[in-house]
Amino acid sequence: MVKAEIISVGTELLLGQIVDTNAVYLSRQLATLGIDLYHRTTVGDNPQRVKTAVAEALQRADLVITSGGLGPTEDDLTKEMVSEVLTLPLVLDQASWERIQKYFKELGRPLTQNNQKQALIPRGGQALRNERGTAPGVMVAKDGKLVFCLPGPPEELEPMFQEQVLPRLKGKHGVIASRVLKIASLGESLLAEKISDLLEAQTNPTIAPLAGKGEVTLRLTARAESQKEADGLLAALEAELRRRLGDVIYGIDEDTLAGVVLNLLRVRGQSLATAESCTGGLLASRLTDEAGASDVFKQGVVTYSNRAKQDLLGVPQDLIAREGAVSPQVAELMAQGVRKAAGTDWGIGITGIAGPGGGTPEKPVGLVYLALAAEDGVEVRELHWPGARKLVKRRTVIFALDLLRQHLLRKEKGSRCRNN
Amino acid sequence: MVKAEIISVGTELLLGQIVDTNAVYLSRQLATLGIDLYHRTTVGDNPQRVKTAVAEALQRADLVITSGGLGPTEDDLTKEMVSEVLTLPLVLDQASWERIQKYFKELGRPLTQNNQKQALIPRGGQALRNERGTAPGVMVAKDGKLVFCLPGPPEELEPMFQEQVLPRLKGKHGVIASRVLKIASLGESLLAEKISDLLEAQTNPTIAPLAGKGEVTLRLTARAESQKEADGLLAALEAELRRRLGDVIYGIDEDTLAGVVLNLLRVRGQSLATAESCTGGLLASRLTDEAGASDVFKQGVVTYSNRAKQDLLGVPQDLIAREGAVSPQVAELMAQGVRKAAGTDWGIGITGIAGPGGGTPEKPVGLVYLALAAEDGVEVRELHWPGARKLVKRRTVIFALDLLRQHLLRKEKGSRCRNN
Repeated sequence: MVKAEIISVGTELLLGQIVDTNAVYLSRQLATLGIDLYHRTTVGDNPQRVKTAVAEALQRADLVITSGGLGPTEDDLTKEMVSEVLTLPLVLDQASWERIQKYFKELGRPLTQNNQKQALIPRGGQALRNERGTAPGVMVAKDGKLVFCLPGPPEELEPMFQEQVLPRLKGKHGVIASRVLKIASLGESLLAEKISDLLEAQTNPTIAPLAGKGEVTLRLTARAESQKEADGLLAALEAELRRRLGDVIYGIDEDTLAGVVLNLLRVRGQSLATAESCTGGLLASRLTDEAGASDVFKQGVVTYSNRAKQDLLGVPQDLIAREGAVSPQVAELMAQGVRKAAGTDWGIGITGIAGPGGGTPEKPVGLVYLALAAEDGVEVRELHWPGARKLVKRRTVIFALDLLRQHLLRKEKGSRCRNN
Repeated sequence: MVKAEIISVGTELLLGQIVDTNAVYLSRQLATLGIDLYHRTTVGDNPQRVKTAVAEALQRADLVITSGGLGPTEDDLTKEMVSEVLTLPLVLDQASWERIQKYFKELGRPLTQNNQKQALIPRGGQALRNERGTAPGVMVAKDGKLVFCLPGPPEELEPMFQEQVLPRLKGKHGVIASRVLKIASLGESLLAEKISDLLEAQTNPTIAPLAGKGEVTLRLTARAESQKEADGLLAALEAELRRRLGDVIYGIDEDTLAGVVLNLLRVRGQSLATAESCTGGLLASRLTDEAGASDVFKQGVVTYSNRAKQDLLGVPQDLIAREGAVSPQVAELMAQGVRKAAGTDWGIGITGIAGPGGGTPEKPVGLVYLALAAEDGVEVRELHWPGARKLVKRRTVIFALDLLRQHLLRKEKGSRCRNN
């Protein structure tokens, strides 16, 4: 099995001035090719450190791909260091030199002496054409090791990889396929418990749980000789996970929770309206991030003030005075009120204390009441969230969407909305 | 001079499944602190390779910061490997353990055995509180070397760095002070034109323009012996930039455009309501991201359907039929309608075509009408945005907030709202 490393060269990377999208691009390409990548290194434009990075990578790996440091200036020195490590002196590549001269002529720019440096490649190596810039890439092999030096600008690196590197690496190392399962409402550790034996036993396919932004994903990655075989491995593991986790898995790959909910409503010919207090429009905004949301999502109201709760949703002032704006009763009337006003099948009402102010001992920051109204009843949930204001908003929205999703799935199975 | 290295841990990084924004964030922070960063390494969730990476980094550098691998699962092993390299056994940190227990209790989720693993830290080290998740960070020093282990999710890593790492690194390496000037409504190239001589002449302070998410920021960074001297350098440059750019600069540092607008309204004792169609609640959500928004922001409606435009805002169906839902007339009536319904000083109405569907030759995707209503009139703007759905939403919201901000500033100077 081939082992690869990626070295990104550029002081601007280490200063955090640019994001290293090349490393991501190359990583993904290698994964698809079935080539193992165990290390990525970033170094600045310093000769000694570039040289050491190349030498160390060549000790550990069979294939090393560098990006950056092929420009015409003094501090562009990737090829120079690769040449030193491999002890292959740089020689002029005549075809590259002619191409560079032509490029400058077409641009009407004067050629500088530095540019000839760009046509130098390690002896025995092969220049890789650069259709979008002046720096040719380099492929050079020695002692069973293979090195590719690619230019830094992504718009030059990516086509060079596609057209000239990929064909040289393809089909030699099997395939890697992956699939992401998305989960909205189960903590990472609870999840780990349900599938800990699978996590421990994993070899091929592998399972990588990842938490973030209030959701959890499971990335399944299979390695095989053919795409078909890899797909088969993924399908078997996915079936096992779905058997254990059931419908807490809301989607795969590029699915979004809001998109899945809108689709479930769409196929049922149903519609939705929302009444938000503490989430302040985030639920509506998530829904309307999805193209075509207007088929299903009819209206949303953000009723921050008590007057708005009364005027738009018909929540009586005396009820608010008696129970408080943050109460199960108000959430329920908000959900029913917006459902009625909009004439939709479903209504969601949310009221809570997102913080940082406004909390009391009885009703602390993070307390949220969420109501889901349908024709046959209303379900009200009391939620308690730790964390800052935006996080309370985000988690509540995820919870609301997932609750509606669960109801839509259950209705499919013939059960009915629980009456609170 | 302190030398630092960053180690990013996670197989998902090497598979190219996610972009390593933590590395960029940490790189930038270290640059601002005046700490030299010579290497960044990425390794997968493999014990031996994480261990080697930590050991090698500690040989070359005085300060090592890791991100990722602090989760509750089997393949989260960063702390374990740091503990082995430093030969400091892992011990239970009682405060972290209590915090984790409390966190789960608040979430109402069962605690699993795995979670105790997250409360382990190398002996003699210090746990770093995680306000947004379960994994505490770690600070541990030995033999003149300092190691920080931070969690992988950026929303956990960034505040932990700001609140608990930064104060421990600051002020030891000379002083680097920086200030960010924020601009909502001026393109990056137009901006560069106005200040190109300053950009070319910059040495200390430096000016780094950065465009993203529909806004432009200018980061000014000064290096000096003392905080006072650095502040003086920054103040002089800021004054010059303000002289040239005027009030397109809406704020500095942590200011948000929505926060600035809410404050301008608050000091005037004025209030706001919003009626959104194509932005689908994003404007309301941005406003309610700000603590205390309820003083000023009274209500928002998301009127995706024509029925909602009529019911909630009083936009007549025949006007919509005649002019189209995306028209200056409808935007105007939405702004006036929501202002009247909510009894606020200001009303914003937005209607447009966010795409990808719904465009026509006369009304293409990206066309938006924005109306701002006050007691003395309505201003309507026609906007044309390139880009995808979410970008159209975001740019429209920024434009709307900045337009209101400009009006509030002009009113201060005695002018009045232009009647459309």
